[in-house]
Order: sequence, then C-alpha cells, then structure tokens
Amino acid sequence: MSTPNTRLYVIKIGGQVIDDPAARKAFLQSFVDIAGYKILVHGGGKLATRIGEQMGIKSQYIQGRRITDEAALELVTMVYGGLVNKQLVAQLQALGCRAAGLTGADMNLMRATKRPVKDIDYGWVGDLTADDVDVNILMQLIQMEQVPVLAPLTHDGDGHLLNTNADTIASAVAVALAAVYRVQLIFCFDQKGVLRNPEDPDSVIPLIRPSNLPELIREGALREGIIPKIENALSACRAGVEKVIIGPATGLSSLWNATNGWTMGTIISL
Amino acid sequence: MSTPNTRLYVIKIGGQVIDDPAARKAFLQSFVDIAGYKILVHGGGKLATRIGEQMGIKSQYIQGRRITDEAALELVTMVYGGLVNKQLVAQLQALGCRAAGLTGADMNLMRATKRPVKDIDYGWVGDLTADDVDVNILMQLIQMEQVPVLAPLTHDGDGHLLNTNADTIASAVAVALAAVYRVQLIFCFDQKGVLRNPEDPDSVIPLIRPSNLPELIREGALREGIIPKIENALSACRAGVEKVIIGPATGLSSLWNATNGWTMGTIISL
Repeated sequence: MSTPNTRLYVIKIGGQVIDDPAARKAFLQSFVDIAGYKILVHGGGKLATRIGEQMGIKSQYIQGRRITDEAALELVTMVYGGLVNKQLVAQLQALGCRAAGLTGADMNLMRATKRPVKDIDYGWVGDLTADDVDVNILMQLIQMEQVPVLAPLTHDGDGHLLNTNADTIASAVAVALAAVYRVQLIFCFDQKGVLRNPEDPDSVIPLIRPSNLPELIREGALREGIIPKIENALSACRAGVEKVIIGPATGLSSLWNATNGWTMGTIISL
Repeated sequence: MSTPNTRLYVIKIGGQVIDDPAARKAFLQSFVDIAGYKILVHGGGKLATRIGEQMGIKSQYIQGRRITDEAALELVTMVYGGLVNKQLVAQLQALGCRAAGLTGADMNLMRATKRPVKDIDYGWVGDLTADDVDVNILMQLIQMEQVPVLAPLTHDGDGHLLNTNADTIASAVAVALAAVYRVQLIFCFDQKGVLRNPEDPDSVIPLIRPSNLPELIREGALREGIIPKIENALSACRAGVEKVIIGPATGLSSLWNATNGWTMGTIISL
C-alpha cells in the first residue's frame, strides 16, 4: 500500500540517451538498480526526425517547436508509442524490471487538451496538467508492481492522439502523484547537472532554491535556456513534489544513497 | 470477480478492417456494443508493408510468411505497437471503452520463443503457446475494467521484441483464459463466415464440428487455405475454448444475442 511516506521517483530521459545504445543500456541498468517505486518518461524527438526523413516526412519547427500535422502525428505515434517505448520495455524486462509501456490514451491515463490555435497552429499537440493524470490507475499499476513507462503522447478523448512534451508529462505525473507519494522528479540528460560554466563539465551547481535563484541569474551563472526549466521545477515543488534533480543519465543509482540522498546533479527544491 | 461462468470474448481483427477507416469505425462501434469482458487482438501487416515501402524497407516473404530482419522488426514495432495499437486505443476511448494497448513485452504478458532456424530463418519471429500468456495479469486488467488491446508482438525475455502472428496470439490468449472464463474466440474478416461457395457471399456454413469436417472437406466445400484455420479453431476448443466464430467484422454486436447466441458467421465447436 502507498502511504504519504512511500517514495516514488519520476525519471525522465531524452533523445540523447535513447539514441545511443551504450548510454541507453547504462541508463536502464541504473534505472533498474534504484530501489522503490518509479516511473519512466521518455522523449524520442531525434529518432522521430531521422525516421521521418527516411519516410519523406519533413519535420517542421516554428520557434524551435515541432509542428504536428497528420503525417507528423502518425510518425510520432509510431516512433514514441511503438519503437522507443516498446524497445525500452523489452530491455527493462530483460533486466528483470516489470515494465508497462503506455501512452496517455491507454487506460485513459492522460487526457489532454489540444493546444488552441492563436498566432501559431501547432497541430496535434496536447497540453497537460496534473489534473489530467489518472492517479488511481497509476497507483493500481504501481501496486501490481509494474513500472509505468510513459511515451510523450496523450489523447483528446475524441479519438485523436496528441504529441506532448515529455518534460511536461514528467512534471504533471510527478505533481499528480505527490498527493499520495513522496515524489522526487529527475530529469536526466548528458551533463552532470546544471553547470555554472558550460565549458567546465564539473561546475555543477549543487542546489538551487527560490532564495538563491535571482542571485544565480544576476551572476550570469545560468544559460538562458535553463531558466524556464528551473522555474518549472520550482513550480512542481510548490505543487507538492519533494525535490527536482537535474542530473546525468548514467550512474543514476549511485547518485542516490539512503544516508546522503542525492550526491550528484543539481537539486532544486523550496 | 471472475468465475468459471463469466463469459469473455477474444476478438481478432486483421488488416482489411484496420486499413479501411469506415470499416474500422463500424467494427469498433460493434466491439464496444458487445456487453461483458472482452479482449481485442489486431494485425496490421498491410499497413506495415505500405509504411515499409515509404521507408525503403522491402518486405520479404518466404512461402507467404514475412521474414523479420532487424529493419523489419523495427518497422512492425512502430506500426503494430505504435500506430495501429494506439490509434485503436484512442478511438475506443472516444467510444467510452477503457482500452489498454499492450504488446507481449508490456507487463511481461506474452513471453514467446524465437522461432528456431531450420530450413528457413524467419528472423525475429516468436512462437507462442497458451502457457506463455500471463493469465493473472490479464485477469487483473479485466478486473480493473480495462479492455486489453493486444498488438501482434511478443518478446523473448532477452531484450528483443518478436513479430508474432495475430491469429496465434488470439488463440493462445483464448486458451489461457479458458481456465478462468467461458471464452469465445471470434475471428473477424471481410466475409460473413466460412463460405461453401466463394462466389456466393451468403453461402455461409453455419456450424463446423469435428464430426462434419471430413464430409465438408470431401465435398470440396472448404478452400484449402481455410482448413488449417478450422483445425486450429478445433484445437482451441479441445483446449477449453467454448466456441470459435469466424464472421464479419461489422455488425458484430448484432450477431450475438442472449436468446439465440451467435446468429451469423460460422461457429466451430466440439
């Protein structure tokens, strides 16, 4: 049974890890080694772009965001919901981890809202909040000792899948589950954490709190792209998530121990 | 709770229905209208061939059977596990049906054996029996009021997905669940049933039993291709499945009523 004291990790990996077989293998072993309840959320944008090119489907971006027309929706449904999700699940099973690969349409797990058309029509893109996540279904899966592996796809309840940002899914799921577990949200990427100096891979900022964020921004210690991520992480903490960790995709299990908690990566908390 | 008296339908649809949006829509409405526990198993070979062509992956067949090399495995993982499975699930959700799209890797539901290489190397193809199906997991999903939607993919427990015939999956799942439910297995296709005269779409043979099968074969009433399917259906009945029905993909719900049972299609039983 879950109690408010049961810990759960929501762990998100992106395209860099998925695309590199060695990095992926190392990550999955790390993931399996983490004791306790956990959920994996994956991206896969790079692979979708590559397979799209092979199919003659050109990825369109406006302001760095993928436009999801019908063809692009079919592409991401195949790549995220099929290729990436099922390969991760099969590999986790081989490591003895009972994984269940799901999109938001499966079990009506994440019913999102198609992004309204304002200046830009993003197409079949879904916006998701914690309220759109079916906490009961996730709890039942977790109690069945299954590890949910979530693809970055939701649905509109009207028969359409929706392309949905994997970071957004990870945050929404973490906040939704914070009502019943002690949730830590981990964003894995190809660096050791948030770096003070992008040239120095070891210049990890160990802790960011609302109180020292303005100072870090003033010092120019944070690249522009990372600031919204940190603000989103702080929002997740305000909504009940214990901690957000931005860290490397490998060595995940050794980053954490019962005595010291997270020993690497950047911790973001209130 | 399930009892040996609880009925469950295992319903299989093939590529013809999946590929035709109108037929698919009509089928899904029929499927949703059937009261009681049910499981959907789908194929998708035609779509895989078409998308494979678009990607420059040529489908290879030996004696009518697809050879699944690495590229073909990626293709069917995308098309069966992603595109077809998730679209069916999203459309079922829109009809108010709580569907959960799964491959055999998900929840370790169907762990199969890679087909041994004898004269022909079929590649990443899995052979499945009823013993390879996790009945407990299926029962738990059913008790969660979820309708499993199974893609024709299994896994080897060693990190690989396996391309697996959808008819085989439907039979194995039906036989496995016959231990706990009264199972009827329905193969839907584009005809009204097994036809005595292929030129006459209404010449449906209403009932095939082991006792009248030899006579039907002697009379030449069965085309050669259908005989193994009927023999497989009779095997499923011997292994505990109540009835196998070969019938049309549309009007499925009206084919069955509480008083008369199945009123259309070909019934195969002991």
